[in-house]
Amino acid sequence: MARKSEDYVVGVDLGGTKILAGIVARDGKILARVKAKTEVEAGYRRIISTLAASVNRAVTESKIPRAHIRAVGVGVPGPVDPETGVVKVAPNLRWKNVPVKKLLEKSLALPVLVENDVNAGTVGEHRFGAGVGVKNLVGIFVGTGIGGGLIINGSLYHGFSKAAGEVGHMIIDVNGPRCGCGNKGCLEALASRSAIVRKLAAAVRKGSKTALTAIVSDKNMRQVGSSVIADAFLGGDKLTVKVVKRAARYCGIGVASILNLLNPEMVVLGGGVVQAFGSEYVRLVANAARKRTFDVTFRGVRIVPALLGDDAVLLGAASLAREKYERRE
Amino acid sequence: MARKSEDYVVGVDLGGTKILAGIVARDGKILARVKAKTEVEAGYRRIISTLAASVNRAVTESKIPRAHIRAVGVGVPGPVDPETGVVKVAPNLRWKNVPVKKLLEKSLALPVLVENDVNAGTVGEHRFGAGVGVKNLVGIFVGTGIGGGLIINGSLYHGFSKAAGEVGHMIIDVNGPRCGCGNKGCLEALASRSAIVRKLAAAVRKGSKTALTAIVSDKNMRQVGSSVIADAFLGGDKLTVKVVKRAARYCGIGVASILNLLNPEMVVLGGGVVQAFGSEYVRLVANAARKRTFDVTFRGVRIVPALLGDDAVLLGAASLAREKYERRE
Repeated sequence: MARKSEDYVVGVDLGGTKILAGIVARDGKILARVKAKTEVEAGYRRIISTLAASVNRAVTESKIPRAHIRAVGVGVPGPVDPETGVVKVAPNLRWKNVPVKKLLEKSLALPVLVENDVNAGTVGEHRFGAGVGVKNLVGIFVGTGIGGGLIINGSLYHGFSKAAGEVGHMIIDVNGPRCGCGNKGCLEALASRSAIVRKLAAAVRKGSKTALTAIVSDKNMRQVGSSVIADAFLGGDKLTVKVVKRAARYCGIGVASILNLLNPEMVVLGGGVVQAFGSEYVRLVANAARKRTFDVTFRGVRIVPALLGDDAVLLGAASLAREKYERRE
Repeated sequence: MARKSEDYVVGVDLGGTKILAGIVARDGKILARVKAKTEVEAGYRRIISTLAASVNRAVTESKIPRAHIRAVGVGVPGPVDPETGVVKVAPNLRWKNVPVKKLLEKSLALPVLVENDVNAGTVGEHRFGAGVGVKNLVGIFVGTGIGGGLIINGSLYHGFSKAAGEVGHMIIDVNGPRCGCGNKGCLEALASRSAIVRKLAAAVRKGSKTALTAIVSDKNMRQVGSSVIADAFLGGDKLTVKVVKRAARYCGIGVASILNLLNPEMVVLGGGVVQAFGSEYVRLVANAARKRTFDVTFRGVRIVPALLGDDAVLLGAASLAREKYERRE
């Protein structure tokens, strides 16, 4: 058996557009990093085979002897049964019931752990990022949608049917806009990037002036990236400032509900929107949450930006794989 | 040391109008039960002394030798630090920073555990009531206000500043009515008995006919009990049916947010409103929650009425005291 200091794991972030694989040391250092394209059109077998090849390439590039690689952790964009490693559904990959663990273990001859990407990202921030040492933590990732993960008593909390953490579908405005899930007034329908773009586009249609007019009135407004909106926001574009502030306020109301229910020590805000808008956004969220919580619930709670950016999922998946397969020996 | 089968604990429910004390056997059987009036006007020392006297009377009545009584658990209506046993604030008792544990231990010469009453009630239902054997459970108690308690991985979850479980202050209608806490659209402002009475009174003022007209138009409408409203509801009074259904729907929306965030195995609904309206109310809540959750989150989740009625707090407090003081030996 390798010495503990010679133990490495592979972390993989399997996204709808790219696969990111890295060799992760015990201290969270990433030794080699491989990127590949996710060929959604080609079907799940191709994606799994590209993923396995990326892992192998990362091992080779890292120059770590394969005998020192203990396990592989994969974060996937959809609900997973972490015991069986079956991905129940992943719309971005057009997957249904794909046995990722079984397929990868056969191909790589290494133990594989599969976890939902938002859960993995939350674990990443908890083990190596903003939340190191925190006992109870909620991760909220704001992008096209809004996802979340819960660390309770130091461990990832899955819930009864492994579906915990759907922060984006907490209802905060029962008469609010329709959400993609079919309900009304979910946090995701009010505070995601999609919600921001929708609001901007509606204002433009009504004749509002904005630096983003050309972009958001385009047919492809769903493609508007966070950084484009953030530039307009940080540049002081009036409409954008108003719309983003409103979205941040809604996010803060969602955070308030979470604080009142769970009273965690920390809320970590990550994802494309938070990365693009920076600390000003986090401040707006914290402010809206403070106004809607009890003093005792809010005092000492840290609402902070995620620190790991695009590495959070990879690092969290690696960390979960290490914890699971070290325990078993 | 007493044999395990000879171990007893005392459970106390300290409420704003009455004190209920009982001797509790290992299996949750209550051997003797003593009731006393809470003399709020007389100050905290009098209340503590009445409480201690009630405990002593219950011990005497039970005929259990005092040497077999291991500890006392007390549920109080306000936030508590369960380590120090100091009640931070209890509006119904007009208390602020009362060191209940210290005062009672001196008076009774027994170890005392103090817990928030809603938390204790949730533990009671988990140990001896609706939720026996359930790993993750949320207790929601609907009365004048709405409180909650969380069982996570089989244990009462307190959160960072021991303030977790404020289900009543989750925000579900950001533009909704003002809540007692100062915010808008909290669950408590939409679904508590107070909210139901307020809605009935407003409709009566506008000329709606109801079996409750005389009662709710009275100055003392805050005093309208759940059973009076339940009689009108179960008797088919049109306005009451409409208003109660609306409140139950809001409660279900709050439950949906909780299910989406925490994905527990069970939600136990208790408190005066639920007791009075019975299973029809629980069915309405479950139905509203089902419509607003993912299939995977809702499937298999049990939304059930509390089983212990007025004994839940007493039994939960007793159970917590037993667990704490057995472990220490």
